[in-house]
Amino acid sequence: MSTESGTAVGTVDVVMGPERLNELIDGQFPDYPACRVVEVDRRTLTMAVDGNRLRTRPGGTISGPEQAGLVDLAAFLLINARLGPTLMALTSSLQINFLNRPRPGDLQVRARTAKFGRRLCVVLAELLDADDVLVASATLTYAIPPIPEPSPPRE
Amino acid sequence: MSTESGTAVGTVDVVMGPERLNELIDGQFPDYPACRVVEVDRRTLTMAVDGNRLRTRPGGTISGPEQAGLVDLAAFLLINARLGPTLMALTSSLQINFLNRPRPGDLQVRARTAKFGRRLCVVLAELLDADDVLVASATLTYAIPPIPEPSPPRE
Amino acid sequence: MSTESGTAVGTVDVVMGPERLNELIDGQFPDYPACRVVEVDRRTLTMAVDGNRLRTRPGGTISGPEQAGLVDLAAFLLINARLGPTLMALTSSLQINFLNRPRPGDLQVRARTAKFGRRLCVVLAELLDADDVLVASATLTYAIPPIPEPSPPRE
Amino acid sequence: MSTESGTAVGTVDVVMGPERLNELIDGQFPDYPACRVVEVDRRTLTMAVDGNRLRTRPGGTISGPEQAGLVDLAAFLLINARLGPTLMALTSSLQINFLNRPRPGDLQVRARTAKFGRRLCVVLAELLDADDVLVASATLTYAIPPIPEPSPPRE
Repeated sequence: MSTESGTAVGTVDVVMGPERLNELIDGQFPDYPACRVVEVDRRTLTMAVDGNRLRTRPGGTISGPEQAGLVDLAAFLLINARLGPTLMALTSSLQINFLNRPRPGDLQVRARTAKFGRRLCVVLAELLDADDVLVASATLTYAIPPIPEPSPPRE
Repeated sequence: MSTESGTAVGTVDVVMGPERLNELIDGQFPDYPACRVVEVDRRTLTMAVDGNRLRTRPGGTISGPEQAGLVDLAAFLLINARLGPTLMALTSSLQINFLNRPRPGDLQVRARTAKFGRRLCVVLAELLDADDVLVASATLTYAIPPIPEPSPPRE
Repeated sequence: MSTESGTAVGTVDVVMGPERLNELIDGQFPDYPACRVVEVDRRTLTMAVDGNRLRTRPGGTISGPEQAGLVDLAAFLLINARLGPTLMALTSSLQINFLNRPRPGDLQVRARTAKFGRRLCVVLAELLDADDVLVASATLTYAIPPIPEPSPPRE
Repeated sequence: MSTESGTAVGTVDVVMGPERLNELIDGQFPDYPACRVVEVDRRTLTMAVDGNRLRTRPGGTISGPEQAGLVDLAAFLLINARLGPTLMALTSSLQINFLNRPRPGDLQVRARTAKFGRRLCVVLAELLDADDVLVASATLTYAIPPIPEPSPPRE
């Protein structure tokens, strides 16, 4: 559905595509090597998660805060995809329901914007396991910084 | 209000006091060396957090998921304090509002039970910085496992 | 997608279809004459809402609690559709984000189950206006009563 | 702690005290005749609720949306108390946990600000019954309109 980023001729869907978003993960979120953006457009983002590289809790499940971290990262990346690098976009609220214990293995986060205002952005996100079972469902609110950071030069 | 645990003569307030809860952190939550329970009774728990040992996000702030992890741990410990070791108490929902950027330094989590049912426990938690500024406010729901795990022998 | 209720031969999708659910509204929720179920299956329910029959707040918008009432009713009806009459299914938590002011006129609620456990049911619901603009997004948790109420006789 | 409003000599705690807030209820929220503000300061507000004048749901309990309406109203009034009449302060999110069925009779809402920013206000509210049992616990976010409405003249 979505294609590569703002560098492509005639593609104004998103400012940052999967490649640049994954560089952002590597540069700014070293705790999340498990995560790779695989698809993004202005309203939705899909992120693949290597289940073997996540923090677990007693019982072997992926911990709740780790699941919260995954949906939070996906929401942050979706905002950056649309606005360009916006490191100071900050989560103002996070609400997550833990629904089913994931099957061990890879996971996927699917995020979409419910509202994209100038100051506030609301993102709905779902975490699914390899069997497409819904593991968690989340609503995140982000405060968008008032003065956009200048976009880095594009080659 | 309440101090040491159910081992003390005549103290039936909680099954596990700060000392045993901190052993639980060390044994089961190695990602949270920053956290020490300092006070607990049947309804409330206070946990001190070494701010220098937490995960930060771009901008230097303590990341949202890390803050979520702190309130989640405090809620889990409060349930264990009251019921005895209940490792399979699982978070079923977590809602957190990020209110103010914490001053660098130590933090404190104050948790209290809003409801303690047989199957479901609702905990309200606040994260404060060294100036007593409210950093985050959270509501957590825990599912209590139906069959209590046997208490370990007490020396 | 979904058809009429459990009374139809070979249809085990839902126990109660739109017609019986609308009778349930009339009998038990006289405050919600504006609401009519138009489609339901085991996982999703669509409810039409007459926008002229809702409570407004200063400024003329449909009040937040009124919007909360609409998603709560839709979630309740979805549970009843699947389980049969379960009047004592009780909301245990409700989280709603108000996203856009609705255009005056008719509204629609779309609800779907995120988890349907024996004791707990999590429903995601969206409220849309006549232009399909997302007005509110909600997550509701329902406690299912342990002993199911006997189904009424079916003619 | 705080008593009557900004009209009293030397009292700058709040712009609107209980009397003016109750006039606001009567003028703008005719659906809530059950509610009377009894105490307010810059950070907290207590509202008494006549339990006999509330909407119930099947089973005779006060309905969830009605409880949501009570905490929402208290949060709105707390913001108006501090800022002066601000009818266009709008709820942007509401999260409520229903904890215990209230004893029939009068209720009380206790609200306090967790954050009071220029654009966003977060209010924590609790609903208690006549036995001081916690009936519901809520977190509300309000968007404060950018241009303050002019304060009405004070006599």
